[in-house]
This record gives sequence, structure tokens and C-alpha cells, in this order.
Amino acid sequence: VAKRLEKFKTTIFTQMSSLAIKHGAINLGQGFPNFDGPEFVKEAAIQAIRDGKNQYARGYGIPDLNSAVADRFKKETGLTVDPEKEVTVTSGCTEAIAATILGLINPGDEVILFAPFYDSYEATLSMAGAKIKSVTLKPPNFSIPIDELKSIVSKNTRAILMNTPHNPTGKMFTRDELNVIASLCIEHDVLVFSDEVYDKLAFEMDHISIASLSGMYDRTVTLNSLGKTFSLTGWKIGWAVAPAHLTWGVRQAHSFLTFATSTPMQYAAATALRAPDSYYEELRRDYIAKKTILVEGLESVGFTVYPSSGTYFVVVDHTPFGLENDVAFCEYLIKEVGVVAIPTSVFYLNPEEGKNLVRFTFCKDEGTLRSAVERMKEKL
Amino acid sequence: VAKRLEKFKTTIFTQMSSLAIKHGAINLGQGFPNFDGPEFVKEAAIQAIRDGKNQYARGYGIPDLNSAVADRFKKETGLTVDPEKEVTVTSGCTEAIAATILGLINPGDEVILFAPFYDSYEATLSMAGAKIKSVTLKPPNFSIPIDELKSIVSKNTRAILMNTPHNPTGKMFTRDELNVIASLCIEHDVLVFSDEVYDKLAFEMDHISIASLSGMYDRTVTLNSLGKTFSLTGWKIGWAVAPAHLTWGVRQAHSFLTFATSTPMQYAAATALRAPDSYYEELRRDYIAKKTILVEGLESVGFTVYPSSGTYFVVVDHTPFGLENDVAFCEYLIKEVGVVAIPTSVFYLNPEEGKNLVRFTFCKDEGTLRSAVERMKEKL
Ligand SMILES: CSCCC(=O)C(=O)O
Ligand SMILES: CSCCC(=O)C(=O)O
Repeated sequence: VAKRLEKFKTTIFTQMSSLAIKHGAINLGQGFPNFDGPEFVKEAAIQAIRDGKNQYARGYGIPDLNSAVADRFKKETGLTVDPEKEVTVTSGCTEAIAATILGLINPGDEVILFAPFYDSYEATLSMAGAKIKSVTLKPPNFSIPIDELKSIVSKNTRAILMNTPHNPTGKMFTRDELNVIASLCIEHDVLVFSDEVYDKLAFEMDHISIASLSGMYDRTVTLNSLGKTFSLTGWKIGWAVAPAHLTWGVRQAHSFLTFATSTPMQYAAATALRAPDSYYEELRRDYIAKKTILVEGLESVGFTVYPSSGTYFVVVDHTPFGLENDVAFCEYLIKEVGVVAIPTSVFYLNPEEGKNLVRFTFCKDEGTLRSAVERMKEKL
Repeated sequence: VAKRLEKFKTTIFTQMSSLAIKHGAINLGQGFPNFDGPEFVKEAAIQAIRDGKNQYARGYGIPDLNSAVADRFKKETGLTVDPEKEVTVTSGCTEAIAATILGLINPGDEVILFAPFYDSYEATLSMAGAKIKSVTLKPPNFSIPIDELKSIVSKNTRAILMNTPHNPTGKMFTRDELNVIASLCIEHDVLVFSDEVYDKLAFEMDHISIASLSGMYDRTVTLNSLGKTFSLTGWKIGWAVAPAHLTWGVRQAHSFLTFATSTPMQYAAATALRAPDSYYEELRRDYIAKKTILVEGLESVGFTVYPSSGTYFVVVDHTPFGLENDVAFCEYLIKEVGVVAIPTSVFYLNPEEGKNLVRFTFCKDEGTLRSAVERMKEKL
């Protein structure tokens, strides 16, 4: 294996989902729904396949999806972008992240992460030869430690890679926090790569795209995807919106990582993105009900549950149960209780920082969530 | 844009397909069929979508597709591989190439290509920081210049990246040539990455996988895909077969480039790979008819057509028409004649070497091929 990937292991999501199957445990680990995506989107994919939309798409996306992404972005941010020059369709947001990093970051460039962070960020930055720094979002509120952030941004900083709503914590960056990031980036000429795949799963406050802040669009790559919002995580349609000079880099890397993305799924994605507001309202209503079941359940079991404003995840402190760390707790939970959660220590540069925290997802039907809570009540 | 991608342009396929649309030209450039894939494969995808196979697949492939790939590989090579440890499903062969290179090549490693070569090879090697060397396959037979190859393989060589049947020339590597490559690799402890996406489009001789040669499996990553064989280039399902120690590197890079590949399309791909032999026989029969139309047509127009044994491409010498180089010829052909071909100079480290050659594809219905020939007869 190449040195750039030597230190990484099989992703925690793959590990935990395999263990879930092996032990017949209820999988509240990897973030994929156990219910299906909407019929109108599935039908659109079927129609595209039947209509013979089965050959290579244009590398950066079929025109209809690029437009639908631009329209969505306008609705979210108020900004008008050129679908032909500022939108790139990718094979999931993971590829959008990889294309952004490999297309825009040079070896030795410093990039700042907020720990805990989604594991692909560190691995992909390592592929690009970046120097990684991180500031840690700490419970209970996972607020940004502003002074610490200020102290590590310098003229060597090339980019800040952020995620709001934030996986795994469910924290949403506030307008004040975003303003701080924005002024630091403008002052030090820093790019922002903003992963916003959970933007439609915002429950306690409105999602704000950092690209919408004054002076920021021109230095921001906004990353998003279809999977979370449409409960179709297996379709792997993502995109990057960025000014043309940054889009050029993203597209160059994308051209040689995957060249193009599944054509029929792109047609379906364009249909999905044109869903009426009522679709999103219903989605949020459903998720609030699920979240309530899980959060109340976890509290009744005895966890300290930290507030989650968005995403379909909550983070808890497992220490009341006396296991030595997050990995040991998750192992016990799978084998003795029959429930899968995700240990968080893998999402920090220093794993020690995550040792008290584990993540549960509530993107499961209510019966499954209740059964998981029952098992924990009985056996923890 | 990051330095690793600075020298690359928009891919020639994207450029030429856009020009085809803009000028209403007949597109014999980018290699995608203008006919549809088989109904039984399309129906399998539709069934998978209907059946709710819409969430994240296992990162390295759904079990059924990994097995189908292993079975196909056994049929082709006689080798038994473990579908769980030696097969990785990717988002098209382009991603399989990227994952192989980024997963196994370190900065400074030397990698040898056969020019002309598919453009992603050079760009992806550049992303990995590899040192590229090439030997050129020259018309009329595009044979490997064995002495030259021997002279550039050394203890600094980490891998040979090859492609048989070969895009753009249609050359197929002979058993003698493969034996030479194999003994050089064994002598100098060199890996082979073998792109065999056109293996089922072999017309004049049998395709041989270099992995099947004695002592080679253990040092070879064999790359393949669904798109060419099943006329579904837009579905973007590829795979890499390699011994476990190499698969580990491929999977690590894949995990962070795309994580997983479209789930419903993987179910359909597994169905496709279990097609009876008659499917492949009919495919080849169809393509032989198309090839005859194109080759005879190009000869009657006045081109020197070089022999192509496999792939759906032929390379011709355009110099009888007096244009200054391949790019100028292709421009003239699009604007004045209304036909798109691919200039080959972009597929060489030294573009001069390709200046007399352009590539045409015959993956189009017979009427389209005849119309293209008519246009050229009239206007060239
Ligand atoms: C790409 S697998 C991880 C799914 C996910 O987003 C999560 O569980 O955090
Ligand atoms: C991935 S676009 C190129 C298609 C193709 O294989 C070719 O035309 O050479």
C-alpha cells in the first residue's frame, strides 16, 4: 500500500456494518436509512433507464442536473451560479471531497479540520500530501474554540474543511461562528471547503451556507449530495458548487478519478432536487419524531445525550457504563447488547479526545429505534 | 488548481463530444454506443431499485457482484480468486485505475506506459507523484519495441500500466509480448496494472490476461468494467482483481475516493456478468459487421487504416488529406465534413508522435457508420 494511505484502516463504517451483520445486531452505526427513498425519485431513475439514458454523461454532469443544483443553491443561499461553469456532479459527496482536495491542495499546504471529523477528510488530505491541523469541538455544545482557531490560522493555511450540520455531533455552525471563520479566511486568503450534506436535516435552527456570507462565495467550495435528503444513500450522487476558478481544479481531478457519474441516476437526481417544499417539511417532521424516540430512549437508558441540532446523529457519553473507552464500549454494545454505535475516537487526530463519546443514528424506522432502546434498557 | 493537475486540459473526450453537439457532427469520437444495453440488464437494475436496494453498498462491492466478478475471472484466466479478499468494485474502470495508482504508487516511483495511452493514466500517475516513462507502439502493427522496453525497466520501476485490447490502436498484446513483459516484471520485481475493459471485444485473436501467465497473478491488478461489454457506458461499474496484498491498497484508496458504488447498478452488473456465452458471441458478431462497414468505408475514402484486432476503435493515417497534424485534421473533419474523430497526439508523452494518427470508433449503429462514411466521401 502506498505510504499516503499506510496509517489508515478499513473505514469504521465498513467495520461496524460488517459486525452488525455478523452479530445480528441492530445497526445504529453507519448512517443509512432502513427505509426506502421516495417513489417519484425511484420512478424517475426507472424511466431514465427505460428511455435509454445509459451512456456516458457529460463529465461534469448532465445539463439538467447541473441546472437543478444551481437552482437549489440559489434557493438556499440567494446566489446565482452558472450551472455550466460552477457546478460539478460527482459520484457521491465522498468523491466531491476527494476531487476538491486533490484538485486544489498542493503537498505541504496546511488545511484545518474541526475534530471530530468525517474520516475521509484526513485520508484524502493525506493522499494530497497536505499538512493537517485541527481544533476540537467539545461537549456539551461543540462550539468552535475561537481563540484556538485564530491561533492556528496563518499565511500557510490554504483551506478550512468544515461540515455543517456536523457529523458526528449534530452541531450546526451559528451565524456568529461562521462570521468568525469568514473573516479569518478573508484576512488570511484561505479557501473553505464546506460539506453540507445534512443541510436539509436541520431541526433546531436554520442551516446557513458559509458561501452566502459576504465575500465568501469566491473562496468557497460547497459540497452536497442526494443520498441523505432523499434516503437513497446507495445512489452515490454528489456535487460541488464553486466559482469557476475553483471549479476548474475540482473538475480536473474529477475527470481522472471517475470521469463521469451514473447517467440514469443523474436524471433521477434532477427530478428529486425539484421536489416541492412539502417533501422537505415531511422529511423533517419524520426525523424529529425519530430523534425524539432515540434521544429520550438513550436518556432513559442512562446516557448523557449531547444536544444535536441537525444531521441524523446524536453523540452520547458512555462513561456511566464503566467501559474503558469508546471502542471497548461499542464492542460490548454489539456483542452483549446487540446494538451497533460508532466509536468517535477515529475522528480525531488525537484519538484520546473521543474516548468518552459514541455516535448513534436515528435514520431507522421507529420500531427499530424502539427495539434498540429496549435492548439497551434490558442489557446495559 | 493543484500543481499535480496543472498541465492537464479538459479531457479530449469531453472536448470532442461537446464539439459534436455544437456542430451537429456525427460522433465517431468518444467511445460510447448510440444503441442501448440489453433489456435483461436494464430490467435487473429496475428490479433492484423497486426492491429497495438503494442504500450504501458494502464499500468493496455487494457480495453477489464480487462473486460474479470472481467467476468471470476464473472463466477467463483459469484462476480461482477469493471474491471477499481479491475483488474490489469501483465507480467505473477510471476509478479502478485511480484507486490502483493512488493506493499502490508512491511519489517518485517509476511507472511505464505504452504510448499511445488512455489519458487518465498519465493524469492519475501525476496525482500520485509517479515518474512516467513510455515506450511507443508504432504503426502499422503497434508491436512492442522489446529492446526499448528492456532498456527502460530497472530496479526503480515499480509498475507497468498496460491495456489490452489497446485503446486507441486496437492492438492486442500477443502471448510472446506478454511473456516478455512477464519475465521482465518477475526479474525486476515490477507490478502490472492491466486495463482489460475491451477483453470481450476481441475479433482477430483470443484475449489473454497477463495475470494468467505463470508467476504473474501475484503481482498483477487486472482492471475491467461493465460498460463496454454491455453497451452501458453510463452506468460506471468497474472492478479490480488482485491478490489480497495489492487489493488492500486498492481498497484503501477506493474507500476515500468514492467509498462505495451505486447499489442498484451493482445488482444489475451481477446479473449481466452471468450472461450466457451466446450474449458475447452475438455482441462480437454485431461488432464485426460494424467494423467492416467502418474500415472498408475509411479505406474507400482514402485513409490508410491500421489493423485493429480488438476494442471498438481503429486508427488511421490522415496525411493523404494534407492537413498539418491530427488536431487540425479533426477540426477540419468536424467543421467541414461533420464527423468527429479523436486526435491521438494527447495520448503520447511527446505529442509529435501522434500527429499523423486519428481514431474512429465503430460503436454506432450501421446507419450512422454509413452516413459518416458518406459525408467523408463527399467532402474530404
Ligand atoms: C460513506 S459511509 C458513512 C455514512 C455516513 O455518512 C456516516 O455514517 O457518517
Ligand atoms: C471515459 S471517456 C472515454 C471513453 C473511452 O473509453 C474512449 O473513447 O476512449
